[in-house]
This record gives sequence, structure tokens and C-alpha cells, in this order.
Amino acid sequence: MAEKEQRIQPRTLKGFNDYLPEQALRRQVVQERLRHVFERWGYQPLETPTLEYADVLLGRYGAEAEKLIYRFTDNGGRDVALRYDQTVPFARVVAQYGEKLARPFRRYQFQRVWRGENTGRGREREFTQCDVDVAGAASPVVDAETLVIAAEGYRAIGFPRVQVLVNDRTLFDDLGISKEEVISIDKLDKIGAEGVIRELVERGREEAAATDLLSRLQSAEPPARLKDVLAMAEDFGMPEGVLQFEPTLARGLEYYTSTILEVRSPDYTAGSIGGGGRYDALIRRFTGRDVPAVGFSFGLERVIEALEAVGAFSGMRAAPAAVAIALGRAQLRWAGDVAARLRAAGVSVAMATDPDGGAGKQLGAAGKLGARYALLVGESEAAAQQVALKDLESGQQETLGLDEVVQRLTATVP
Amino acid sequence: MAEKEQRIQPRTLKGFNDYLPEQALRRQVVQERLRHVFERWGYQPLETPTLEYADVLLGRYGAEAEKLIYRFTDNGGRDVALRYDQTVPFARVVAQYGEKLARPFRRYQFQRVWRGENTGRGREREFTQCDVDVAGAASPVVDAETLVIAAEGYRAIGFPRVQVLVNDRTLFDDLGISKEEVISIDKLDKIGAEGVIRELVERGREEAAATDLLSRLQSAEPPARLKDVLAMAEDFGMPEGVLQFEPTLARGLEYYTSTILEVRSPDYTAGSIGGGGRYDALIRRFTGRDVPAVGFSFGLERVIEALEAVGAFSGMRAAPAAVAIALGRAQLRWAGDVAARLRAAGVSVAMATDPDGGAGKQLGAAGKLGARYALLVGESEAAAQQVALKDLESGQQETLGLDEVVQRLTATVP
Repeated sequence: MAEKEQRIQPRTLKGFNDYLPEQALRRQVVQERLRHVFERWGYQPLETPTLEYADVLLGRYGAEAEKLIYRFTDNGGRDVALRYDQTVPFARVVAQYGEKLARPFRRYQFQRVWRGENTGRGREREFTQCDVDVAGAASPVVDAETLVIAAEGYRAIGFPRVQVLVNDRTLFDDLGISKEEVISIDKLDKIGAEGVIRELVERGREEAAATDLLSRLQSAEPPARLKDVLAMAEDFGMPEGVLQFEPTLARGLEYYTSTILEVRSPDYTAGSIGGGGRYDALIRRFTGRDVPAVGFSFGLERVIEALEAVGAFSGMRAAPAAVAIALGRAQLRWAGDVAARLRAAGVSVAMATDPDGGAGKQLGAAGKLGARYALLVGESEAAAQQVALKDLESGQQETLGLDEVVQRLTATVP
Repeated sequence: MAEKEQRIQPRTLKGFNDYLPEQALRRQVVQERLRHVFERWGYQPLETPTLEYADVLLGRYGAEAEKLIYRFTDNGGRDVALRYDQTVPFARVVAQYGEKLARPFRRYQFQRVWRGENTGRGREREFTQCDVDVAGAASPVVDAETLVIAAEGYRAIGFPRVQVLVNDRTLFDDLGISKEEVISIDKLDKIGAEGVIRELVERGREEAAATDLLSRLQSAEPPARLKDVLAMAEDFGMPEGVLQFEPTLARGLEYYTSTILEVRSPDYTAGSIGGGGRYDALIRRFTGRDVPAVGFSFGLERVIEALEAVGAFSGMRAAPAAVAIALGRAQLRWAGDVAARLRAAGVSVAMATDPDGGAGKQLGAAGKLGARYALLVGESEAAAQQVALKDLESGQQETLGLDEVVQRLTATVP
């Protein structure tokens, strides 16, 4: 039967990744730590669907961004699209459920998003955002809170020091800079001052005016509201030296209206490791009335890449602590009992799968699995309700009672 | 500007759900509890992409099932499909990474899957599976382990009692029942014995033979291998009265080859709340060689619906424990300090967003948010480094030092 079937090559799409256990564990640990920070600040979980009606997403991100949206017609003829970020779905939720939601509505959301990008370092087509957003509060208090949460989040997952760059989009309006020009200024890091000036000239400025504009922008003071926000962030415990006003910071997405922020790490040079801002007009596009909102997004894959570079995950392993080895079918029950006792005490124990395979073979398999300990249960151990505990690192073995084994393993296993 | 824009109706696709905080919290809690069970048994996390090459998924589930796959051509002209289950991607991973994986490879995977079903109670187009699978072991030990893990999983998430129905697909072969006939037998619950016999007749059996076949099946004994599996499950701690041999149990998916199981709860009548089985030939379709495997899948949405019916989530709330209220801008720093101390002690505290709004208005907002406590910080409290703790349930208020507040809230908040 199998001979006749066509063999399918096992492979994944470019920009779409498998996360094998060690990697998946890191993703889990980082998300768990972020989640605890967000929950402590009173943020609540939200999940939205993978697919949305396309019109819910379109007209939100800017023309360049929207070319990257995965969009198709489903079997029922509906024009649908894969989530591009979590901010627009959040805005939809706020508009859709209104009174059912807390006011202000603080939520966190950890889901995947899809963008048909050219792939590259830190740029995948499927990636995971860990977001915090607040809707329904125009107060600078929530901008400040967002800054502090971002900084606390990075600290919680193991960044000894990050830089939080902050700006206010209204600064561009105050200097008479158009939306298109903002897009050019956003490229300052990539194309340099000369490149930005060249683009501003292409967009219609005189060269002298463009040069002057960029220099005025670079030496601008924070707008009054941003000054307030920065002071409040200090009130809320922002560590010193983390915040940095950056008047040329622009952020690509079109929906930002006021505070914008971006986080960088000296340990990650391929771009920012998170960003966000205030988007007071986005929800209005669903409701027709203003609902101010502000939020921040941690890029999970980039964060993990940066953390790996500083060795933040060393010693973290997905393998079970021990393997329970029955030496013969009749010993399966006692091996099962030993394993159950250890599991109840919080130790991970896998069962060896070949009770008639002999001790050597089963020990070899346990070692390959990456387990630290083998729990050998032969006839005599079962009869005496004991277990031979073998340390697969040192090779040492000793026979212990059940309580002793539990004590030993709970003491040595993290 | 907003006036000129077309207003978009905020809405979701049929069969695709938003999970608002209370619901999202339940999903999180259930997944966390299952995860702990799986980890204790030595299972490791895995994540695979949302999109796969269509040929990876096709030819695996049976013709009827495959009509439900979300399939489209991406912008690069690739024939792609949304994950239909996690078993086929798991099989692909085992084939693709081979030696890089533990042997046997035990993994859990909690991700969404998509099926263009007709929606109905407990049947959505996007839903979440919580899976455990083992590849690389033909031993009945892992079938038995899977049965016990299923039972422990349900117990861990709050099912006082479930029924685990078990069968072996080879039973059908032994009785000369064809694949197509298995599909009819799988409908026994829905269409009754008469309906099944009618279908068997339509598929070419004489009525007397069909009647006899069904009755022989219903009174069949477990095959020898399944007897072994059931005995080993007992060795591994399966509670009494949970397992039930059910010779007519068939399971829809085509890839099962031996042990099959399905879990039902008396508290959920719309169908099974989980299922799985052994699929020894699935990975061969990628590799050309046998890699035996067995697994089980918890249906998250159904499980939660059933748990809600028995009140398993009562008292669980997503709202923060307390709201910190500064009475005036100058008090934000002390309010922030109080909140930070409580958060460090594990209490969730949201900041009130309107420090100049007055006590009454801010207390009202805290109440609406669903918080149990308000932490009022006026000028005198800030000066004395105290806080007025108001219980929003009883209305009682008292002024306390910081240590006392921390003690009070860590004692009363779960």
C-alpha cells in the first residue's frame, strides 16, 4: 500500500517556522513571564480569530504594509485575511462589544500574525506578538504606564538593560511635516541624514529647507504632553537611563497619533525588539466616535534571538528529569507507581517503552532522551518497594526507598 | 477626516470567535493545567506553522474531511492550507527532523486548527486542540500511557468523572469490515443500529449478514494487544471505572491503525470531548519507512463548555484585585509606589487614569472595572506614607501603612 502512494517531501513554507522543544520551551517561558507582568498591572487576556473579514483590516496600516496582508476568498466566497497585527483586531473588539468591556479596557494578547515580507534576519512571515493595549483613556497616565510596562517586561524576561526611545507624532505636525515625509524620516537609521534629505527633496522640498527641517527636528524639545508622560513614567517607577526622547523616531504604521515608542537592545542589532504608541483615531473608524487607545508590542522571535545572544536560557532544558525503567513486564506496575509519586511531587518522569529490552538498551535510550536520572526497577527492587536511582551524568547508582528518591529528585531538579 | 471615511462594521466570521477576558482566562487556565500534566509525563512542547504546503495535509484525513480544509494560493503562487489538525504536522516534523528529536519523541502541542464545517453547538470553524503524541514506539506501553494521561488531564482540569471509550481498529479487519463500512459504524450513535444496517446494506451486504455482523461486533472481545494495553494502563494508575471497551467505536479519521479512544462526559451531550489513537502508517507517507505513533487530543472549546456546565470556573475572575487612585496629580508618585509594592507581592493593581477626576468618579470607575479594592491616596496619605484601603464589596474603608496593605491584600486575594 505504502509503496503505491506518492511520497510527500516533509518541508515548511519560507518564513514559517517549526519550534522544536528547546525553542518552544523558551517561547513559553518568555510569554509566561510577560503575562505575569501584564496581569500585575491589571491587564486581562484577549484572543481574537486568525481570520477576519478583509475590510476590517484594510485601510489601517498604510498602502505599503497592506501589500503584505495574506488575503484570500474562502469556500463561502467571503473576502478574508489573516491577522496582520493585534491592534486592529483589538480596535474591532472594542467597537464591537462596547459596554461588555471594562472601562478603560486593558488587555494583553499573545498571538501570531502574518505578513508576506521578504524574509531576513528577525523577519519572518509568521511571527508572534505579545501585546498590551488600553482603550478608553486619553490620559497621559496610560501612556506613562505603557512605557513602564514595556521596561518591566524586558527586565522580567532577562534583558539587563534596554533603551526605550520615545517621541510624539504631533511633533511632526507642529513642524509642518507631512505623512509622506514621516515615512522618509522613519528611514533615518537605514539611509542616513543624506538619504532622508534626498527623499524630502524628491517629495518637493528645497534642499536647504529639507536640511534645515531635519536639523530643527533633531534638536526639537519634547511636546508638552510628552513631557507629562515622561514625568509620570518616572512616578510609576521607570528605572533611570532607560527612557530617551528621540525626535526623529517615526514608527511605520499609519494609525499612530501621539506618543510613539520603540525598544532597542545593545544585544540585538537587526532592529527594534518592540514598539507601540497611541492611536486615538483607529477605533473611530468602526464606531464613528472617538475611543482613545495606546499600546505596546513585544516581538517574541526577536526578543528570544536577543536573549539567546546573552545566554539567558542556559541550563533550561525540555527533557524530562528522569526515565522510569521497568526490567520486565511484571515490574511495570511498581515502575508506574514510582513515576506517579515523583510526578505528584513535581518531577517530570517519562516511562521507558521497552520493558523487555534489557537494562543496557533502556539505559542507553534514557541517556539519549537527555534525562538526568534513570529509575531502575527490577524484581528485587519491586519486591522491596525500592528503586535503583542512576545518575546518568556521573554514572553513580544507589538503591533507595520511595521517599528518599522523591526527596533526592525534588532537591536536585529545578 | 473621519467623516469622509467609510465606516466599517465591526464583526467576525461565522465559526470564528473572540474570547473576551473571562473566557480567555478560562482557556489559559485549562491549557496551563493540561500542560503541567503532560510535562510531568515527560512530554515536550512543539509549535508548527499555521500554513503548510497543501500537499503535506492532503490525502491524510479522508475525502469527506478534506473538503473542509482552508486552502488557497498565496501571493507567491504556492498552494497552501491552514492546519486541519496537529497530528499530520507532527508526523511531518518527525519525518523532517529525524535524528534531532528525542527517541521516542513525546510532544504536546496547543494550537488552533481550522475546518470549514457547518457550525453548530461545539462545532466551530476555528478551534483549539491540546494534543499529546508519541512517535517512535510501537510498544503497548505508550498506548497505555496515552490512556492514563487522557484521564489525568481531564481530572486536572476539573472533570470529576469521564468515560474513556477504547477500541482497536484491527478488530474491524479481523471481522472483515471494510474502511467504508467503518465510516457507517462510526455513525451508530447518530443513526442507531437500524441506520447502520441500512448503510451496510447500501454498501453491498445482505441484510441478514449486516445484522449478524453488527451483533458480532457488539459482542466482540478486545483483541489481545488491546487487552495488554488496558492492563498496562491499570499498572500506570488508571482509576477504576473510567476505561470502557467499546467494540463499535470507530473514530472518523482515516489514519488510525490500532488503539483508538474517545472521551465523553455526562455533563456534555453534544459529542466527545476528546479523542485519539495509534497511527502507525502516517509518518511513512513522508519517510517511506515505518514510524509508529499514538496520541490524544483534548478539544479545548468543548472541554470548557462542559466545565462551565458544572460550575468549575466559579469565583475565577479576570479583573484586577485593586485599583490605585491618586487624588490629584501630585499623588501619582505615592500611588505608583503603593501599586508597585503590591505587584511585587503578587497582587494585580490597575492605575486609575484620571487623577484630577475626584474621588467619587474614580471610585465609580474602579467599581465598574470589577476590582475588589480601591487604594485611595490623597495628600495626607501620601505625606504619611499611608493608603486608604476601601473594600468595594462591603464599602468599609480604613487607613493603613504600606506593609499592612500588602499583608491584607495578599491574604484575601487568591
